[in-house]
Amino acid sequence: MQTTEKPKQKQKQKRKTNDMSVKISNSLHRMFDNLCKAIEEIDGCKFAEKSWNRDENGKWIEASGGNGIVYIDRALRDGNVFEKVGVNYVSMLGELPPGMSFRGSEPAMESENGSDKPTPYFATSTSFAINPKNPMAPTAHVNYRYFQLGDGVEAGSWWFGGGGDLTPIYLFEEDAVHFHRVHKEACDKHNIEFYPRFKKWCDEYFYLPHRAECRGVGGIFFDNLQGREKEELFSFVKTCSEAFNDAYLPLVNKRKDMEYLEENKYWQKLRRGRYAEFILLNDKGTSFGLKTGIVQPQSVLNCMPGEAFWNYEDYPLLNSKEAKLLEVLKNPRDWV
Amino acid sequence: MQTTEKPKQKQKQKRKTNDMSVKISNSLHRMFDNLCKAIEEIDGCKFAEKSWNRDENGKWIEASGGNGIVYIDRALRDGNVFEKVGVNYVSMLGELPPGMSFRGSEPAMESENGSDKPTPYFATSTSFAINPKNPMAPTAHVNYRYFQLGDGVEAGSWWFGGGGDLTPIYLFEEDAVHFHRVHKEACDKHNIEFYPRFKKWCDEYFYLPHRAECRGVGGIFFDNLQGREKEELFSFVKTCSEAFNDAYLPLVNKRKDMEYLEENKYWQKLRRGRYAEFILLNDKGTSFGLKTGIVQPQSVLNCMPGEAFWNYEDYPLLNSKEAKLLEVLKNPRDWV
Repeated sequence: MQTTEKPKQKQKQKRKTNDMSVKISNSLHRMFDNLCKAIEEIDGCKFAEKSWNRDENGKWIEASGGNGIVYIDRALRDGNVFEKVGVNYVSMLGELPPGMSFRGSEPAMESENGSDKPTPYFATSTSFAINPKNPMAPTAHVNYRYFQLGDGVEAGSWWFGGGGDLTPIYLFEEDAVHFHRVHKEACDKHNIEFYPRFKKWCDEYFYLPHRAECRGVGGIFFDNLQGREKEELFSFVKTCSEAFNDAYLPLVNKRKDMEYLEENKYWQKLRRGRYAEFILLNDKGTSFGLKTGIVQPQSVLNCMPGEAFWNYEDYPLLNSKEAKLLEVLKNPRDWV
Repeated sequence: MQTTEKPKQKQKQKRKTNDMSVKISNSLHRMFDNLCKAIEEIDGCKFAEKSWNRDENGKWIEASGGNGIVYIDRALRDGNVFEKVGVNYVSMLGELPPGMSFRGSEPAMESENGSDKPTPYFATSTSFAINPKNPMAPTAHVNYRYFQLGDGVEAGSWWFGGGGDLTPIYLFEEDAVHFHRVHKEACDKHNIEFYPRFKKWCDEYFYLPHRAECRGVGGIFFDNLQGREKEELFSFVKTCSEAFNDAYLPLVNKRKDMEYLEENKYWQKLRRGRYAEFILLNDKGTSFGLKTGIVQPQSVLNCMPGEAFWNYEDYPLLNSKEAKLLEVLKNPRDWV
């Protein structure tokens, strides 16, 4: 085993300039920066930022002067347009404990691998949870990520994941259509089968079984995506991540100044309660993050909504606007 | 097997008048009613109530006229003193799927039992999640429950569970001392070893590992309690459940009219966010309820706080009153 180690070290060096780990982490960093800038432009307020590094004992410390950054959190609270936006960007090399692997966002024990050595991995990701103040403007979530074990050359040793999804508080059908259309066009550039497959996956993933409701009107979602040329999937993920701004931001601009009543704000808080339920009860990424401690808990939970609310009787009146949303959450539609 | 069934049916009849299932469900019903009345007296507002029954297809329907009630939910929202109080009372006969059992609040497969028949069970419980408006007044939770398989005669076929715990938003040490002292006195009447054992269990159970914080300042907690005379444990649970009003309500009366600032209300909402995290991420009773569908989801989640709030930077200033609370949540104390 020892003789094979040195070449691996060399590959790691090479990877730093040429490899997928660099290409995808640069691409996701551009998305991270562009979307943050676009949100700040709409809002007028700036994100607060914290960058994190590990000290020699593995303890998280703030990364000063841009050196040794493992990941970055950004948060915008109580802005002019947005109530709460939580953002993360990660690009990290690490080691999995012996025998441990990941299949998509789920840790798995690789018992066939009898090695007692830790497995090096590379992970990169960016994610946004965007909550506008105005209840007529939809909440959105977007996350794209790449993971590889070792040098990521072998089939099955790497995968892509992610997607973008829309969570309206009030349903404007044309908004859902627009969000889906932009995502479909992005998918169709690469493979005509992707949109229907990842649209369905999104409806199934962002689902609260205990409420028998989808979280929102969906979008696209995929996990543990592999089995094709890595370049092909990278190019697909790049297109989708670049399409998100056009899919979502026009909806915020259209709705951010609409008039609303106190009762609309109440319904928004109830829906944020559902969003919190999904994250804490159902989201695999959250339980993965909290269990593995791959980043700090407040970073994992940076995607939580701002003000959430629970009430025993939270079902809307028949034929109300609120009931119209719930109808769609219980019966996902084909929007395009 | 068939010949043994008829005597079991007879035992079920007998149980309805003499047995532990009747005694404990009556006792918990008294607690339920007394505590609800006491809360209404303090608040001036009344609980809304819904009673539930199953129709012939097993679908939950509102129980009308007091007949066939399986369980009762009560909720008080936006009262004069309380922001949100969620209450349940359950007394139900049911059947576990073949091979399934419960060890405390955790479903377990009883593979040693080769029976392909469903196992009849009896469960009774009452629980309160009490959130005052004033951030100086502590939140409290109390729940007592009894479970038996079949006629509950065999050792290991029944257990008690429950406890009461206090979740202050601001720490008043004398309040924590009072709450613990009343619970200790109740325990000591039965067994001098109970309080230290169940106090520790409470600190360990109401713990958020991802935050490395206890939910509150504890109280008592036990689950799957058996291995002694059933009457002895019933008597202990009865004493504890009756002690809760004296342990908690004086604290509400003492704090409900204290002055507070907007920033205290903000801290209260952040702590309610932690409370929501505990329920959705860590509480075994909640995941048990949602997974088994033993009652409806909105009944399980009747224990959620009202208004909760998340912020990326939610750590208090050094030496602040908020930091004083956090210090105790991170390092549980012996209060009596």
